[in-house]
Amino acid sequence: MNDLFQMISQLQTEYCRCIADGEFERWPELFVADCLYRVTTAENFRQGFEISLILATSRGMLIDRVSALRQANIYERHSYRHIIGLPSIPAATDDGHHSCQTSFLILRIMQAGPTEIFASGCYHDRYRVVGDAILLAERVVVCDSSRIDTLLALPL
Amino acid sequence: MNDLFQMISQLQTEYCRCIADGEFERWPELFVADCLYRVTTAENFRQGFEISLILATSRGMLIDRVSALRQANIYERHSYRHIIGLPSIPAATDDGHHSCQTSFLILRIMQAGPTEIFASGCYHDRYRVVGDAILLAERVVVCDSSRIDTLLALPL
Amino acid sequence: MNDLFQMISQLQTEYCRCIADGEFERWPELFVADCLYRVTTAENFRQGFEISLILATSRGMLIDRVSALRQANIYERHSYRHIIGLPSIPAATDDGHHSCQTSFLILRIMQAGPTEIFASGCYHDRYRVVGDAILLAERVVVCDSSRIDTLLALPL
Repeated sequence: MNDLFQMISQLQTEYCRCIADGEFERWPELFVADCLYRVTTAENFRQGFEISLILATSRGMLIDRVSALRQANIYERHSYRHIIGLPSIPAATDDGHHSCQTSFLILRIMQAGPTEIFASGCYHDRYRVVGDAILLAERVVVCDSSRIDTLLALPL
Repeated sequence: MNDLFQMISQLQTEYCRCIADGEFERWPELFVADCLYRVTTAENFRQGFEISLILATSRGMLIDRVSALRQANIYERHSYRHIIGLPSIPAATDDGHHSCQTSFLILRIMQAGPTEIFASGCYHDRYRVVGDAILLAERVVVCDSSRIDTLLALPL
Repeated sequence: MNDLFQMISQLQTEYCRCIADGEFERWPELFVADCLYRVTTAENFRQGFEISLILATSRGMLIDRVSALRQANIYERHSYRHIIGLPSIPAATDDGHHSCQTSFLILRIMQAGPTEIFASGCYHDRYRVVGDAILLAERVVVCDSSRIDTLLALPL
């Protein structure tokens, strides 16, 4: 496996880890400043609909989201556990990025309650090499189900 | 990781992707023409019972299955999401193949309904190198549970 | 990916396989003789609490556990299926070990019953190179939920 594949795998592992460990401030750092982060459903994605459940068009908006999560939002305490598959082999894109897809399963653990399947789907990503590192330029979170719980507080 | 491991990992990623994306016609292309595809339970597999829930002894039979799925079968619309682990290190077999095993979890997403655990288990595979590529010569889908939903339409 | 990462990945794959296949006697062989194996919750782990749901401070205690499982314990027949993510890149520790973390999901399959999410969480591991091989010197199984089923018979 080449270095690029390894770097992408590790970025994804870190992505899952910081959410599971509640280190939400780390999450925006995995994106470039002019990133796109979007959550949609497979149904909408297939039909090319632009509407999103969540849409952020910069790292700053992701940082805002984390602030809201920490300070403003009121919700029952819970955590996520991401279980992800191997990424597909990255493909070079015309604009100098690398695109790849990764299956995900997200479990939601309510405090002292049961663990449930919260969402499954596929990450459609574009990565940008920045110096020695790699960062997310775009992550479109395509959820398999159109039925998404309204409690969408933590990052998917 | 060697090339063989990488090629097997990527074939598996593509296997899961084409099913998740509803590109069922792509599925038989991942097998050799004289393949074996079989779905069984851990209980039957352990005891060496030959009976299968699904049995196909050629790529042609897989193609037939996809045709039936597209044209004949009537069932509630749904999709699968495969989450698989890392394959075991491939072992050379006497007949020039490479065998390996991979844990799987398959989620079933009903249209506008909940996402459920549909099946878990282990793929027992034999791979054949064909030119520059690698294809499935045999996939035995060993399901952990003996209780399998009767709606067994999409490929496991 | 380097050799160390590959060796760790394969050890983990074998760990999951031997439990899924009911080869429990194989499980202690994946640890060094003076190992630590501990099951705890994220809540307790975060606060540094030492109390554990399960604690074994040697390979001998793991062997004892397997004996109890085989001969003494009475429980409904069931099996586990581990689905694990990619390990994080191993980090060298001061005492000559390699530490890494891996997300896990464990499904419990009751005989002829439904498949359920039994536990999710993160393995906090330390590995020791022993000759040509690598073994677990420490595995702390940190479960996401504080609500753990009392039927904790098979190894997590």
